[in-house]
Amino acid sequence: MITRRFASFASTSTKKFSLPKNIRQLLEPTDITLDTAKSSTVSGWITSIRKQKRVSFAVISDGSTSKSLQAVLINGKDDNILRRLTNGAAVRLTGQLVASPGSGQSHELLVDEKTGGVIEVLGECDPETYPIQKKALTPEYLRDHAHLRARTAHIAAMLRLRDVLGRRINSWFEDQGFCSVNTPIITASDCEGAGEAFKLSPIQSRHPASTSATPSPTTPPPPSEFFNSPAYLTVSHQLHLEALATSLSRVYTLSPCFRAEPSDTSKHLAEFWMLEAEWAFPTPDGVLGVCDLTEALIRSIGSEVRQKDDLEAIAKLKSTGDKDYLANAFESEAPWARMTYTEAVKELQTAVSQGVKFEYQPQWGRPLQSEHELYLAETLIGGPVFVTDYPATLKPFYMRLNPDEKTVACFDLLVPHIGELVGGSVREERADILERQMREAGLIAKDDPTGQNSSYKWYLDLRKFGGAPHAGFGMGFERLVGWLSGVHNIRECIPMPRWAGRMLL
Amino acid sequence: MITRRFASFASTSTKKFSLPKNIRQLLEPTDITLDTAKSSTVSGWITSIRKQKRVSFAVISDGSTSKSLQAVLINGKDDNILRRLTNGAAVRLTGQLVASPGSGQSHELLVDEKTGGVIEVLGECDPETYPIQKKALTPEYLRDHAHLRARTAHIAAMLRLRDVLGRRINSWFEDQGFCSVNTPIITASDCEGAGEAFKLSPIQSRHPASTSATPSPTTPPPPSEFFNSPAYLTVSHQLHLEALATSLSRVYTLSPCFRAEPSDTSKHLAEFWMLEAEWAFPTPDGVLGVCDLTEALIRSIGSEVRQKDDLEAIAKLKSTGDKDYLANAFESEAPWARMTYTEAVKELQTAVSQGVKFEYQPQWGRPLQSEHELYLAETLIGGPVFVTDYPATLKPFYMRLNPDEKTVACFDLLVPHIGELVGGSVREERADILERQMREAGLIAKDDPTGQNSSYKWYLDLRKFGGAPHAGFGMGFERLVGWLSGVHNIRECIPMPRWAGRMLL
Repeated sequence: MITRRFASFASTSTKKFSLPKNIRQLLEPTDITLDTAKSSTVSGWITSIRKQKRVSFAVISDGSTSKSLQAVLINGKDDNILRRLTNGAAVRLTGQLVASPGSGQSHELLVDEKTGGVIEVLGECDPETYPIQKKALTPEYLRDHAHLRARTAHIAAMLRLRDVLGRRINSWFEDQGFCSVNTPIITASDCEGAGEAFKLSPIQSRHPASTSATPSPTTPPPPSEFFNSPAYLTVSHQLHLEALATSLSRVYTLSPCFRAEPSDTSKHLAEFWMLEAEWAFPTPDGVLGVCDLTEALIRSIGSEVRQKDDLEAIAKLKSTGDKDYLANAFESEAPWARMTYTEAVKELQTAVSQGVKFEYQPQWGRPLQSEHELYLAETLIGGPVFVTDYPATLKPFYMRLNPDEKTVACFDLLVPHIGELVGGSVREERADILERQMREAGLIAKDDPTGQNSSYKWYLDLRKFGGAPHAGFGMGFERLVGWLSGVHNIRECIPMPRWAGRMLL
Repeated sequence: MITRRFASFASTSTKKFSLPKNIRQLLEPTDITLDTAKSSTVSGWITSIRKQKRVSFAVISDGSTSKSLQAVLINGKDDNILRRLTNGAAVRLTGQLVASPGSGQSHELLVDEKTGGVIEVLGECDPETYPIQKKALTPEYLRDHAHLRARTAHIAAMLRLRDVLGRRINSWFEDQGFCSVNTPIITASDCEGAGEAFKLSPIQSRHPASTSATPSPTTPPPPSEFFNSPAYLTVSHQLHLEALATSLSRVYTLSPCFRAEPSDTSKHLAEFWMLEAEWAFPTPDGVLGVCDLTEALIRSIGSEVRQKDDLEAIAKLKSTGDKDYLANAFESEAPWARMTYTEAVKELQTAVSQGVKFEYQPQWGRPLQSEHELYLAETLIGGPVFVTDYPATLKPFYMRLNPDEKTVACFDLLVPHIGELVGGSVREERADILERQMREAGLIAKDDPTGQNSSYKWYLDLRKFGGAPHAGFGMGFERLVGWLSGVHNIRECIPMPRWAGRMLL
């Protein structure tokens, strides 16, 4: 009874809920019936306006597509409204969607008071002080206005590109039988030495009883750890994903990661999103099978995304002409190049002998520097290249030792302009070898023969109880966005970037 | 040339990449051809095994479905293998998928060496020390073994439920023209007073030049803020979402949030996932339109999810019989109940006059306590109920003031067993009223007439420059999972829970 009474408050049937069509939906070919008798309402922001004596032309954007809708406004009697129609103002326009005589657009919105047209100004925007002016704005200026920069065409397109990439990633993994999981952001371990971890501040302890007691003015309560132990922001979800992969077999996450590194480069952020996947029972061909899966994923999402209008919108503003590299990667059916670290070092040494100058001399056993990675991808291969089987000493403890006992079954995927896009490996599933590597890495103390006191005991447990061969990778999401869009400063590839010394909002 | 050479390393054509079928895929009706001549390979973990003289029965799970696959193993000559087939062991079995004579399963895997069957033990599991024994394990025990608890049937089902819910949420929002965005985790503001925020520790400053200088043993470098200003973990993405909604119109995020509250209840986590959405140009019917969208979303994903096998698997272990409430919510077409806060208080006062005992007396102007919320949802309505238009003094500064100037255009969605599942509102889009409310909330100082020095100046900017009417909500994802699955301690609704004093792994 009571349910029925209060139910009467519901304003519409939930079965039929639908928001009004946005500009993208309105312009979809299946939706345009050209029934000029029927009125359409469009809400959005004016991105440019040209006022003439009898008619005004306003370009309206609502962020749903890189296409704008032009509205033709037949000027009415009210000059006051016309004055408020400025760049940046929020408006709601009702009119007829008609075929456009102009080029560059199939349709336009004709707004004429005489035929029921309505212009509403929902939010004014002072054209003098509006920070997003029509003129070209530098990336630095826009970063300083992080709360408004999504109103530029290319940042809006970038945000839609992120959305589309995320959806394609989700559907690819679903097709392959993966489960999307949420591993923790706050963690007890600073993980694998992948980078400096942010630490949470201890909090001022406030014992429930302390409020009733007389506070001592000289001794404030000592700060204490909220979790009773030091807590960090995760630098990688891998170890936790491995735990879930020993139950669900195939798991992935697209999740925030954090590195407290003082890097001030175009490729590093203090807060970034990382796509990480782990799967048990990989194909038997070792690290090359892991490369195959990674390539299949990136090709699948990349090929699709390259058809999008948004990529065109971004391309107008991109930092370098990267067309050929992307065409090499996505338009050829030939698999991307694979080479071992050992071969890569030889190639680099050959290059040196042919006169190529590097700051760091390439030598087996030393890390590949950024300059080496870019040489391999841009000059030697001219496209993406998997470099496999690095020396064990250069890589973390969890990578599977190869039979040579010197290298591990790992890869880095290097791409032009970006350098390392993905890093992955077969994981060490043999408990005895893993334990030895953990001891060498200092994760199990010498006076702890069983590893009971290690904070990584749980990780060893995964091998001890039904451990299975497994593999995985991690891919920086902003780097992927940057590579596919040709915008190579990843500070423009995330809505509100954070790096050392810099966090707005 | 070089490309061709290294390309030869690629082991398979990327065009055809596919991982082996998992158990869910193998058991899909379209996939079962009953071609017994064709062998199938299944990889997974033994969840139970019964050994008889000539034949053994092993139940295999790979986490891809709540259905297990029974393998019938014709015992070979090698006793050694049989001994290693224990609960928890990882195995790869090759045999024939045949129709099962047993009940409860359509097919089983027949593994017979004589017809090419192969049993491989990939990872042993000591049945004596394996923490996940067959007997019933308490939730507390499983939380203590967070790295292994996903191997139980109900936690695995819960993880798959999260995955399915996330996918349904994504597709619902896509259909409605929303863009999925990633707003920051680390933020400069502790937001809207939604709760205590975690703060990042300052880091030991290491000036690049300091390594070459002789370190002073008495004066270690002072700690400094990594971002040059205090940094917090976000308690809500709302304000940042609003910034993006003034460009993209409709945005949402399913993202981690953090509250450093010392709550030790079954409904609070220090780290949790929240679905938050903001959209410009909402339907003109104010907060009821926001309720309509929220109800449509939850009904759509809930109805679909209720058909899943995983929900059955979880239901076997759920904490209370919640069937009727969920049936009320999802099987009836009647809209969920709506009532104003004022009406809700009257109903609670009536209940008191009829003898219902509350710890806190219901009174207009005071918050609804958990006991009140549960009474409204469970006893008064017997299902979900939207309570709207709370007093402005009880709600944050950004909610839109109603014409009565006492209440705001907001709602809380209360559901049985959980209490508050969603909170949302129309946002205050009028710059003058918002500024007044921000001053009252202390977010703009008295001696700052223009708000230039406020750390929320950017938020005020959103109204100043083309601000549009908009609305939004936030929903605790673990609470949604808990409500739909009937498991009401949300510590079981996230893979690795964190709360005050407690963080493993």
